[in-house]
Amino acid sequence: MSPKPHAFALAAVLAAACWLAPAAPAAEKPAQEPEPAPVSADSQACLDCHAIATPGIVADWKRSRMSRVSPAQALARPELSRRFSAAEDQVPPELMNQAVGCAECHMLRPEKHPGSFDHEGFSVHTVVSPADCATCHPTEREQYGHNLMSHAWVNLTGNPLYMQFEKQVNGVMSVGRGGLAVAEPTPRTRDESCLACHGTEVKVEGRVTKTSAAFGEVTVPKLSGWPNRGVGRKNPDGSLGSCTACHSRHQFAIQMARQPYTCGECHKGPDVLTYRVYMTSKHGGAFASLNKEWDFQPVPWTLGKDFSAPTCAVCHLSLVTTAQGEVVARRTHRMNDRMWQRLLGLIYSAPHPIKADTTGIRNADGQPLPTTLAGEPASEHLIGEKEQAERRGRMRGVCLGCHSAQWVDGQLANLDEAVRTSNANTLAATKLMQQGWQRGLADPANLFDEYWENVWMQGWFFYANSVRFSAAMMGTDYGVFDNGRWETHKTVRRLHHWLQSTPPAAGR
Amino acid sequence: MSPKPHAFALAAVLAAACWLAPAAPAAEKPAQEPEPAPVSADSQACLDCHAIATPGIVADWKRSRMSRVSPAQALARPELSRRFSAAEDQVPPELMNQAVGCAECHMLRPEKHPGSFDHEGFSVHTVVSPADCATCHPTEREQYGHNLMSHAWVNLTGNPLYMQFEKQVNGVMSVGRGGLAVAEPTPRTRDESCLACHGTEVKVEGRVTKTSAAFGEVTVPKLSGWPNRGVGRKNPDGSLGSCTACHSRHQFAIQMARQPYTCGECHKGPDVLTYRVYMTSKHGGAFASLNKEWDFQPVPWTLGKDFSAPTCAVCHLSLVTTAQGEVVARRTHRMNDRMWQRLLGLIYSAPHPIKADTTGIRNADGQPLPTTLAGEPASEHLIGEKEQAERRGRMRGVCLGCHSAQWVDGQLANLDEAVRTSNANTLAATKLMQQGWQRGLADPANLFDEYWENVWMQGWFFYANSVRFSAAMMGTDYGVFDNGRWETHKTVRRLHHWLQSTPPAAGR
Amino acid sequence: MSPKPHAFALAAVLAAACWLAPAAPAAEKPAQEPEPAPVSADSQACLDCHAIATPGIVADWKRSRMSRVSPAQALARPELSRRFSAAEDQVPPELMNQAVGCAECHMLRPEKHPGSFDHEGFSVHTVVSPADCATCHPTEREQYGHNLMSHAWVNLTGNPLYMQFEKQVNGVMSVGRGGLAVAEPTPRTRDESCLACHGTEVKVEGRVTKTSAAFGEVTVPKLSGWPNRGVGRKNPDGSLGSCTACHSRHQFAIQMARQPYTCGECHKGPDVLTYRVYMTSKHGGAFASLNKEWDFQPVPWTLGKDFSAPTCAVCHLSLVTTAQGEVVARRTHRMNDRMWQRLLGLIYSAPHPIKADTTGIRNADGQPLPTTLAGEPASEHLIGEKEQAERRGRMRGVCLGCHSAQWVDGQLANLDEAVRTSNANTLAATKLMQQGWQRGLADPANLFDEYWENVWMQGWFFYANSVRFSAAMMGTDYGVFDNGRWETHKTVRRLHHWLQSTPPAAGR
Repeated sequence: MSPKPHAFALAAVLAAACWLAPAAPAAEKPAQEPEPAPVSADSQACLDCHAIATPGIVADWKRSRMSRVSPAQALARPELSRRFSAAEDQVPPELMNQAVGCAECHMLRPEKHPGSFDHEGFSVHTVVSPADCATCHPTEREQYGHNLMSHAWVNLTGNPLYMQFEKQVNGVMSVGRGGLAVAEPTPRTRDESCLACHGTEVKVEGRVTKTSAAFGEVTVPKLSGWPNRGVGRKNPDGSLGSCTACHSRHQFAIQMARQPYTCGECHKGPDVLTYRVYMTSKHGGAFASLNKEWDFQPVPWTLGKDFSAPTCAVCHLSLVTTAQGEVVARRTHRMNDRMWQRLLGLIYSAPHPIKADTTGIRNADGQPLPTTLAGEPASEHLIGEKEQAERRGRMRGVCLGCHSAQWVDGQLANLDEAVRTSNANTLAATKLMQQGWQRGLADPANLFDEYWENVWMQGWFFYANSVRFSAAMMGTDYGVFDNGRWETHKTVRRLHHWLQSTPPAAGR
Repeated sequence: MSPKPHAFALAAVLAAACWLAPAAPAAEKPAQEPEPAPVSADSQACLDCHAIATPGIVADWKRSRMSRVSPAQALARPELSRRFSAAEDQVPPELMNQAVGCAECHMLRPEKHPGSFDHEGFSVHTVVSPADCATCHPTEREQYGHNLMSHAWVNLTGNPLYMQFEKQVNGVMSVGRGGLAVAEPTPRTRDESCLACHGTEVKVEGRVTKTSAAFGEVTVPKLSGWPNRGVGRKNPDGSLGSCTACHSRHQFAIQMARQPYTCGECHKGPDVLTYRVYMTSKHGGAFASLNKEWDFQPVPWTLGKDFSAPTCAVCHLSLVTTAQGEVVARRTHRMNDRMWQRLLGLIYSAPHPIKADTTGIRNADGQPLPTTLAGEPASEHLIGEKEQAERRGRMRGVCLGCHSAQWVDGQLANLDEAVRTSNANTLAATKLMQQGWQRGLADPANLFDEYWENVWMQGWFFYANSVRFSAAMMGTDYGVFDNGRWETHKTVRRLHHWLQSTPPAAGR
Repeated sequence: MSPKPHAFALAAVLAAACWLAPAAPAAEKPAQEPEPAPVSADSQACLDCHAIATPGIVADWKRSRMSRVSPAQALARPELSRRFSAAEDQVPPELMNQAVGCAECHMLRPEKHPGSFDHEGFSVHTVVSPADCATCHPTEREQYGHNLMSHAWVNLTGNPLYMQFEKQVNGVMSVGRGGLAVAEPTPRTRDESCLACHGTEVKVEGRVTKTSAAFGEVTVPKLSGWPNRGVGRKNPDGSLGSCTACHSRHQFAIQMARQPYTCGECHKGPDVLTYRVYMTSKHGGAFASLNKEWDFQPVPWTLGKDFSAPTCAVCHLSLVTTAQGEVVARRTHRMNDRMWQRLLGLIYSAPHPIKADTTGIRNADGQPLPTTLAGEPASEHLIGEKEQAERRGRMRGVCLGCHSAQWVDGQLANLDEAVRTSNANTLAATKLMQQGWQRGLADPANLFDEYWENVWMQGWFFYANSVRFSAAMMGTDYGVFDNGRWETHKTVRRLHHWLQSTPPAAGR
């Protein structure tokens, strides 16, 4: 029954090699790096002017891996250390032996880009899209297409309930004879607030002449929804997403994508404060104290050698291996590949949706939400127990890289409990809100446009999320006094006091 | 009367040596490091499997000082640079000449650990306790035992008033026919919220079989209150505390314990936002900007050479010396050794308690609090003026390492003033709350279960703390608009408006 | 009409040199550094004692550039890399060939400093002022004098409306028979809260004897308003400002002034959360992830080479050049040199004031504010369109270092829209507040002393600022749920609900 003696012997054998030679990584690196690949003539033409016109991004690109590695060189690497997912016969031959410069992205597939324009004799497009990146990184693009994030614009703008909410956040308010009014948000307001992260719809709207700093006037396509680098951006070529949301132009530094600051650009506010929770956790404390000693660049990324505590990327995305080269977790760009329960953004926490496009979800009351106001899940739209178990198992596998099974299972049980109890507290708040609606103290025709509705919303949209995130990542006070249960409970008490202190006869 | 001419001459002589040779530290370090001590056979057996089973923590341990320094080597160092407080004859001889590996901690004192279990032929315990660490670090354990933090679980769970409060924060709320109800918090909720920092009670509750990642099933003691690394954890062996709360497993990196991020894991929320206040101070700004150039590892830690502004550890804990080797502050693990006034967590700021166990404190009204609701201190339980002056003098000594006496005394007087005025503002809020209780607008039978009581609490539990912390550490806006006086005063105005706007006849 | 062919040729020529030799910077640096300049005998006398009395600041100074570069050496550098703005004939000859030590600052111009005192035979003053620093840095001092920040004490304490507000924030509150009372803030409270950042008035108030750590008693001038390092400090010599607010003693590290943490010491709270907004932006994310690889010390500071995303200093202050040595932005210590619209601190956003001293501003209603409560600007006190365009052009020039003209203009248009819409939302809140005043539910005699006035204030003083900062720096959620529009709109709804739910007859 016990596998232990066997395991012990096996371990001793396996461990021998790694134990004897634990410390040669630094010396290996230069040997792995080939000579820089040549820059194409087209890209060099770009660089000649842009080193003067926009010197910052040229210098940034020069630091990038793309500026010195050709597809052929990328393909020559061992599979686990490859940062390139196209097969050899998928890569256009003319790209194979040169660095990935300006022209290789901004002049790629010109016929697919409505925004392609003549610029110094070249057909150039401003907005490089995931469909362009997929030339070399098709697997990542494919996975990302199954990611909720790639549909962040679609799922927001295609959900009438969310758009009703968005109007109440972004529309200009005015006070006149008719009382309080909220105007439709202006396009720029929309683009610069919610859609800054969700992504805008970028459209070509004719031509515009602009005065640049170094070279006078230049005529370019006029783009609406621009600038933007949101995760679910709808691009002029019809594709969804912006790889540069995380892989920032023009260095595309993997050490940036792997550090939590990048995720924190959108995941920091009270509606989704995962960055803050992480940074207050033991993992975040180790990252903050020790990251100077870590190496954020190697592929694969080796547990214990390159880093000694996880960042966001380690748990959710990255290819992670042991020092012996065993895979702890596979790389994924479907961000919920190791997440089974949706913790944020909705009235109740429920399993993740089956499809990345959530606009088709309807709950039992016909609303485009994954649960009813009473918490009943729209199960036919949500992943089932088997899929939940698989995703949970993948996350558990990452945890087991450092922690015992008992530690991990205790931690996951704490998260389950926080989901259950935070949903229960939201139910209490919602019942009180419903009493307010029934008594005519608020109008349920629009769930988002009255003060007491806003109070109720904060209970779930801000504070219950915080409780769950804290349980998921050991964020301690984010589950108690910093947002947390203090605020979920205070919200319930406040709604209760509102109902108690408003005379029975008082309608609106 | 003037000591100056003498002082000047003395200084010139003393300064000569240090002035002539200010810059050889980097070269010295390798010379101080002996050959790595051997790993014991028992620990090697652990490592052989766990390099595969839990590779992250094995790699982490390999980076640790414990993995390469034996007690004998630690004892051979000069006293000020020793990180080891046991006398030679206190160390078990079998531990003396080997590195401190898995077995040296997890197989130590097996008879004392109810959780010891047979694992691959060894008697192992999961929860290494301060009593284990005291084998080599008895002074630190002794000091820590006099620390409020070691009693964080005892002081919370043993205080009926605090437990009444905790229930109102953590219990699930429900709305039924009888109105609003709050259930007793579930054990997992309790462990994962307040007790995540305070520490849980870890108990052995039988055996459990778990499936690990690499080696199949393993049967281990079933632990309740686990996982946890809270500062006042009650361990299965009866000891209090968790050294790994700050000295994180399994690297036990002193550079982590000395950086503010570690303290910030628990001291960041609105109830105790010292980390935030520090990070916005001039000291925190210097740390954030310059820490890349500092050295967080040397013992002793040299003012001006290793760091140029204090972290939490410098002011509150660490052994700090001058470049000439003069001691500026002695190492202490009784965290309030340089603190005389308790700034947080209670209705009014009062002197620190005499004992680390505060469950015996009773105020003049019989409540387990160090002051009455009117602010009268329970002086017989609190340190007297002489002890306050000594602690203040030790902190002042740290400040004088960089600042003139006038600067420091001005700064300390500002703190005194903030204590006095923040207490006065809390008194105003409390008087209004008492009017609410007297008028029947709230029920003082439980101080924590009504909305207006929560409003009152925030005034002292969040905002008055912030004012005092800001004064203590020059956190500027945390004393004004970021929590701060803006919020203490708004709280008073809000309570006042509540009383004014509620009709005289309205009871609850 | 098209300048392009010419531009292309020009670019190719210009680019040649820089393109061929991009990577020799590290080797150059030592060559540029001369032998350390000698320390004067007077400074050496200071150092001999203070290495023992205050070792931290002595060590800090030893790391500083001032400790090793003489004015003559500073003057010998090429103009763009000079950190010294005095002409050769402006520098006192006796300072020309020695390092800038203790004596060169603390014994400079003794007759101008009321606080000069005899100390070990030297005439020393504690408070080194901008007028002292101007001996070597006259241009910086001159520019800083035109900066709002140099007048932060003057503009606060000289504005009766602001002082009415300050009293309501800082005065101790009490509850007695007459109701709620607010006392005049105590001097220490004032100095330690608002004036910690704004600057105190430092006055010499006789002599005091202090006990230092190392050398017994010392008699020094008694200073009120001390300690302080606020940006607009009024010094005993009558000058305004404290250079050490940003150039921290005694290392005066340019790498500290150039990192956002320094600005964040005062610009972090909800009233002015620029640091937080920056840190959540793409620029801040790049800084946080990559600054380990950047060089914060070179003068001039080269875009793309020394850093790959801007910090606060890059956009607002620093001399920035391209790798070819072309100037992207000139150094300025008038912080609003590249800012045209004031985004914070006032009811409505309006153009910047013409003068740094704003105490003379009066709006159409006679209030010392740049707009009326209805939003009408006091245009005769504010910069006109031409000056606004020039400042905007300078900022645009910085952006164009990395971004296309269309990107930048879209970004600036988003900011314009956020100014317009945030002002409109503030107007809605203000109209409701005015209804409250008209109905007698609050008293407009003092705008700051009632709960509902505080609610209204938060709408503009905290949340509308946040919306504008987020638009200015792409801070995403700070324009939506983290402060942001969620809070501006909730404020309006709350005021509206207050008016709706208060019976028509109810006065105060």
